[in-house]
Amino acid sequence: MTIDTSQFRYTAGASLQQYPTGGAKLKGAKALVAQSVAHLSDLQELLWADNRHAVLLIFQGMDTAGKDSTIKQVTSGVDPAGFQVYSFRQPTHKELDHNYLWRYWRAVPERGRIGIFNRSYYEEVLVVRVHPEMIQQRPLPHERLDDDIWQHRLEDIAAMERHLWRDGTLILKFFLHLSKDEQKARLLARLMNREKLWKFDPSDLEERQLWDSYQHAYQQAIETTHDDDHAPWFVIPADDKWTMRAIVARIITEQVARLNLSFPQPPANGNGWVDEAIAQLHDEAD
Amino acid sequence: MTIDTSQFRYTAGASLQQYPTGGAKLKGAKALVAQSVAHLSDLQELLWADNRHAVLLIFQGMDTAGKDSTIKQVTSGVDPAGFQVYSFRQPTHKELDHNYLWRYWRAVPERGRIGIFNRSYYEEVLVVRVHPEMIQQRPLPHERLDDDIWQHRLEDIAAMERHLWRDGTLILKFFLHLSKDEQKARLLARLMNREKLWKFDPSDLEERQLWDSYQHAYQQAIETTHDDDHAPWFVIPADDKWTMRAIVARIITEQVARLNLSFPQPPANGNGWVDEAIAQLHDEAD
Repeated sequence: MTIDTSQFRYTAGASLQQYPTGGAKLKGAKALVAQSVAHLSDLQELLWADNRHAVLLIFQGMDTAGKDSTIKQVTSGVDPAGFQVYSFRQPTHKELDHNYLWRYWRAVPERGRIGIFNRSYYEEVLVVRVHPEMIQQRPLPHERLDDDIWQHRLEDIAAMERHLWRDGTLILKFFLHLSKDEQKARLLARLMNREKLWKFDPSDLEERQLWDSYQHAYQQAIETTHDDDHAPWFVIPADDKWTMRAIVARIITEQVARLNLSFPQPPANGNGWVDEAIAQLHDEAD
Repeated sequence: MTIDTSQFRYTAGASLQQYPTGGAKLKGAKALVAQSVAHLSDLQELLWADNRHAVLLIFQGMDTAGKDSTIKQVTSGVDPAGFQVYSFRQPTHKELDHNYLWRYWRAVPERGRIGIFNRSYYEEVLVVRVHPEMIQQRPLPHERLDDDIWQHRLEDIAAMERHLWRDGTLILKFFLHLSKDEQKARLLARLMNREKLWKFDPSDLEERQLWDSYQHAYQQAIETTHDDDHAPWFVIPADDKWTMRAIVARIITEQVARLNLSFPQPPANGNGWVDEAIAQLHDEAD
């Protein structure tokens, strides 16, 4: 059984509300994830050997949407040496002293690697946009804090992604699209399970109050920075975790497989160097 | 005596040949440099205290144009803690494994600091453009090595500079404009002076053979990335070193002085905290 992933690829100008958060649960989703992970493991070796492309996977979504667990499931069983996973938390003073893209710039993946951003520079046009006090507290020149700031940030992000793509980075952006009802159920589950309680943060409820503002910010961000060629967004129904993971894993393998990857050509055996090397090893004194 | 710096500011679309490499030597140039450096020293304290803007100075020019000595003269006498000087040499393997802007991204200055790039990301559209074999040796996806590559690189550089400016970085770009005759004289001086001989590299002569290609690459780079608002180029006559240094120093102080800088406002003394602090220090047991 295969998944038609095209329905989850964002279409230029579309409203996020047109995309499902739930829908039919995928049968055998767990097995499909395993299948994709096995495929990705092969592709990763090829990506590494080819050493011309990097892959950058960006995961965004509301609290409890399943970013951590999706990343864990998609990467488990693949050689960790080939991954560079970054979770971005509150910026440090040193980071705030630089331009806001700086800490993400430093973390972009090398050729032959798969970089994963668990949250990303998109937070600079999401959480920072939803909380106007945050941008006021940033040490920016006052005269740059004008009405255009969000549009300018989105332009700058799009330009950075275009540069990365031109230089060989495949960028895939996943919005884990959760319903407000499902978030309620997940937050309640965290509160009622002592073992999951550590994951609950009182600010989660405050952020939930800002649901509509976040959806608006996501809409603006996705609409402005989606580029079908070089920086596509995928809007993934997140209400069922295994369905979501199966779709994400499938999209990653599909897209990486489309890269023009090949193992390096060894020098031809014209002067018999392979045979000589074999002979030399056989002749070694033990 | 003051210098009219406006004549050295690049005008959109102009040919570099319209700008002098020599011309009248500035009288008292050395004293003018000292005057500007003293001014810059004051401005630097203000820049540091304000902590909202960074300054990025970019120096480009042909071999022997005087980049090193200009940087040295402009920064001598100013607190070194406020400067971050980077000289970019051959990229390392790790750097080549990233996008070509990565190593420059990492080095952009913090707020309150003056960053100096002795050569810069512009080399990616200068030396790499003039030597087609260099771009062929880079580990890029073959399909991205098309005819548009230089135009794309210039676009990406312009977008990065726009982002930096929007986030508070003042960018000033200096092309030290040397004549081919003066380069010949300086190379001969290096060859004939045992103490300067270490500065001579046989490849300097090879590069000199490519003079016209370099001028073409500079023309394209400056024309495409000049932005009068946020990333201006200055074309500085470089045949007389002290004249050049005086002009460069003057432009830097003029432009930094135009930033909207101020010392932070201390809290008002409404509840007498200043007097209390003074009293507390006086009352300390010795």
